[in-house]
Amino acid sequence: MKWWLLPLLLWIAVPESDPASEEEDTARIRAMYDESLTNSQAYRWLDYLANEIGGRLSGSPQAAMAVEWSRQVLDTLGLDSVWLQPVMVPHWIRGEKEIGRYFSPNHYGMEEVNVCALGGSVGTGSAGITAEVVEVDSYEQLEAFGEDSIRGRIVFYNTPMEQRHIRTFHAYGGCVGYRWAGAGKASEYGAVGMLLRSLSHKTDEHPHTGSMAYPEDVAKIPAAAISTLHADRLSEALKNDPQLRFHLRMTCDNLPEKLSYNVIGEIKGSEYPDEIILVGGHLDSWDNGDGAHDDGAGCVQSMEVLRLLQAIDYQPKRTLRCVLFMNEENGLRGAKKYAAESNRKGEYHMAAIESDAGGFAPQGFGISDTLPVIEQIRAWSPLFKPYDIFKFQEGGGGADINRLRSQGTTLIGLMPESQRYFDYHHASTDVFEAVNRRELQLGAAAMATLVYLMDKYGLDKPAVDHDRS
Amino acid sequence: MKWWLLPLLLWIAVPESDPASEEEDTARIRAMYDESLTNSQAYRWLDYLANEIGGRLSGSPQAAMAVEWSRQVLDTLGLDSVWLQPVMVPHWIRGEKEIGRYFSPNHYGMEEVNVCALGGSVGTGSAGITAEVVEVDSYEQLEAFGEDSIRGRIVFYNTPMEQRHIRTFHAYGGCVGYRWAGAGKASEYGAVGMLLRSLSHKTDEHPHTGSMAYPEDVAKIPAAAISTLHADRLSEALKNDPQLRFHLRMTCDNLPEKLSYNVIGEIKGSEYPDEIILVGGHLDSWDNGDGAHDDGAGCVQSMEVLRLLQAIDYQPKRTLRCVLFMNEENGLRGAKKYAAESNRKGEYHMAAIESDAGGFAPQGFGISDTLPVIEQIRAWSPLFKPYDIFKFQEGGGGADINRLRSQGTTLIGLMPESQRYFDYHHASTDVFEAVNRRELQLGAAAMATLVYLMDKYGLDKPAVDHDRS
Repeated sequence: MKWWLLPLLLWIAVPESDPASEEEDTARIRAMYDESLTNSQAYRWLDYLANEIGGRLSGSPQAAMAVEWSRQVLDTLGLDSVWLQPVMVPHWIRGEKEIGRYFSPNHYGMEEVNVCALGGSVGTGSAGITAEVVEVDSYEQLEAFGEDSIRGRIVFYNTPMEQRHIRTFHAYGGCVGYRWAGAGKASEYGAVGMLLRSLSHKTDEHPHTGSMAYPEDVAKIPAAAISTLHADRLSEALKNDPQLRFHLRMTCDNLPEKLSYNVIGEIKGSEYPDEIILVGGHLDSWDNGDGAHDDGAGCVQSMEVLRLLQAIDYQPKRTLRCVLFMNEENGLRGAKKYAAESNRKGEYHMAAIESDAGGFAPQGFGISDTLPVIEQIRAWSPLFKPYDIFKFQEGGGGADINRLRSQGTTLIGLMPESQRYFDYHHASTDVFEAVNRRELQLGAAAMATLVYLMDKYGLDKPAVDHDRS
Repeated sequence: MKWWLLPLLLWIAVPESDPASEEEDTARIRAMYDESLTNSQAYRWLDYLANEIGGRLSGSPQAAMAVEWSRQVLDTLGLDSVWLQPVMVPHWIRGEKEIGRYFSPNHYGMEEVNVCALGGSVGTGSAGITAEVVEVDSYEQLEAFGEDSIRGRIVFYNTPMEQRHIRTFHAYGGCVGYRWAGAGKASEYGAVGMLLRSLSHKTDEHPHTGSMAYPEDVAKIPAAAISTLHADRLSEALKNDPQLRFHLRMTCDNLPEKLSYNVIGEIKGSEYPDEIILVGGHLDSWDNGDGAHDDGAGCVQSMEVLRLLQAIDYQPKRTLRCVLFMNEENGLRGAKKYAAESNRKGEYHMAAIESDAGGFAPQGFGISDTLPVIEQIRAWSPLFKPYDIFKFQEGGGGADINRLRSQGTTLIGLMPESQRYFDYHHASTDVFEAVNRRELQLGAAAMATLVYLMDKYGLDKPAVDHDRS
């Protein structure tokens, strides 16, 4: 680049600045942060959701309680409307506590290991299954072993999370495929069961569950996660005795679908009511912990965003909607239903922010849209700087909101500090105590700030046909 | 500013860039991060220091063990020299577990509360003291009450940490004065004891200790911290019964000084051996927890910096020195001795980095020097960006290194994410389990990166007279 082009580029890149408006924005953002840090409801709400209701697997009584409770909370906020959106959800149950143990007569005797069924897995029958184990670290190794080695055995995917990635979600992305599809692949080779090294950066005794699915054309075999500590021990034991036998017992089951709900609260926009800005998280969680980080945090932060904007007496120009989605974890039925209904009604979501990466200290946002829109948001970064919000990264969104893409929606994911997330994710350690109050509050305030700015200034996108409904 | 000045300023601000060198830097920094995240010793070292040795109050057997252990660890790293620097330290002991309770016949009966002596406090005698309580939130209130109200009573400083500060250290700065000097001030008005609301952002049952001192000319009265939870309860109880009586028993004592050591390891520079770059933390800690965050983390990170540079076969041009200071918490004797000896020898520390703000995910550095030096360091920020290091803030350092200022040293403090620090700081909750492995490792790698860059490129400062010794 020619250096004399710089002033021209800077001239273009620096947005028109109106000092009075900037001062007003600075003060309002400060007021929301102050409110969040000194008078937050989010943390108390999370206390109730995690400790009084607990794990909220789709179809469970706890999920139903969470629907009713969050509807009541939204009802107390003085919104323009609060409603439930019905949706049929899968109803998978874990059954009795799973049993995992291996027996190695020559070397190790019998050892109990911590396992948990993956969500969606079939059970083993009440007698359990007992078989030899083939350890692999990839599908390539699975293929190399081939059917002769695998038939009648349990396939053990022992692929550790890559430690070198700075953002832990990248390591998760490298392993989660085995959880989702590994049982089906193993079944193709005649395996009778599947064990997955838990998706965690930590070596400990807690197994991490998560959803899986079977392809249409293979036998459904039981699939379980084993704690990272026990995965290491099992791997070591297999080196000494490749013929050791593993016993797995799981009584999980897929029951008929149940009726559940997305929970929605809305403040109508005063100038552009047809332009919706959505904030949301998912109300369901896994059943082994309390779902405090995943995604109780995102739910209470989303509710708090509306409360914070009201607390500073801000009158939104656009319609602000808080959506607590049902069934993100094992079906995304709430997300599908919400998008389908929204499209059917001809709604337009200008932007959607999802918080579903834990209640940790926020670093910024991942944004999926065209570069000009991302640059417009980046131009607000000086307003975020006092709050240590420094990331405005290309690419982002959330499993519950990504389906709104067809409306031309700017999809945004809150990006909290990620180092500890997978220590808790889908494990019994995901409890209220693992969430820091101030980190949760800072996340809510960061979301509220971005909602405020997008509402006040709009986003530089093609005009929307407001009459298309 | 005139906009046409911009290209000129940019021309000045953009450093000469050498693509080959930049590529080499990128690769070396990546290699240190990879080593830290996959083969770190820091976390194992911290495990030993916190769990096998534990709290390391100056003068205690544990502090002596920590000196010997860390010397041995440094000895295994293949440095050019490792030595102990003798220093006399205060020897304050806590004695038996403290007792705090209040009795309010009309309203509350008797309630036990969690208290702990402040470091340096005198004891109460074995019978303890019992007195009425005067609650204040500031010295202004103390003065307003005056001697008539305070004489013979216990002064209770109930000043909560300000929640609105984003960086929690600012809130600490607003309260720590009461801990340090509050007993002396209360004594001036005839108080017989002092209670301090614990310096924590969290409401819980753990008292937080910390150092205090008496002025020369007042009676020494016992000073204790009370947990935030019990501070709230005591305050409530006082509203109902201002005449309630508080009983405090502490057998802490100041014993004669003991001999201890700073622990030092060094790699001699190949080109500028007289220019020292120091990395350090403090080896002593309070006695109620394990001193894992404060400052076990800083010690193991500082040792790890030298190990990481060796692991990538980097030959430093300057002398790199790891210093584990003794007695930061209640006397700074190690810091004083180190600076005095260094000055006596005519040494020149080009830069010093201290890690003493917890083993949390690093955000950047606070830097005390002239603006050109800070700008030079900021120009390296693109190399830090992949690692989420975004802060290069004016102002920073550390209690142990600040005395090197007279050498013209660039003083630098590692700035980790601060939200959780004061939940653990000086409390029994500061244990190994509160430190996340990856966050600790990222901090060590960030420090190693800055040491590498400062060593390779030097800092743009006035030339040093290497012959002044």
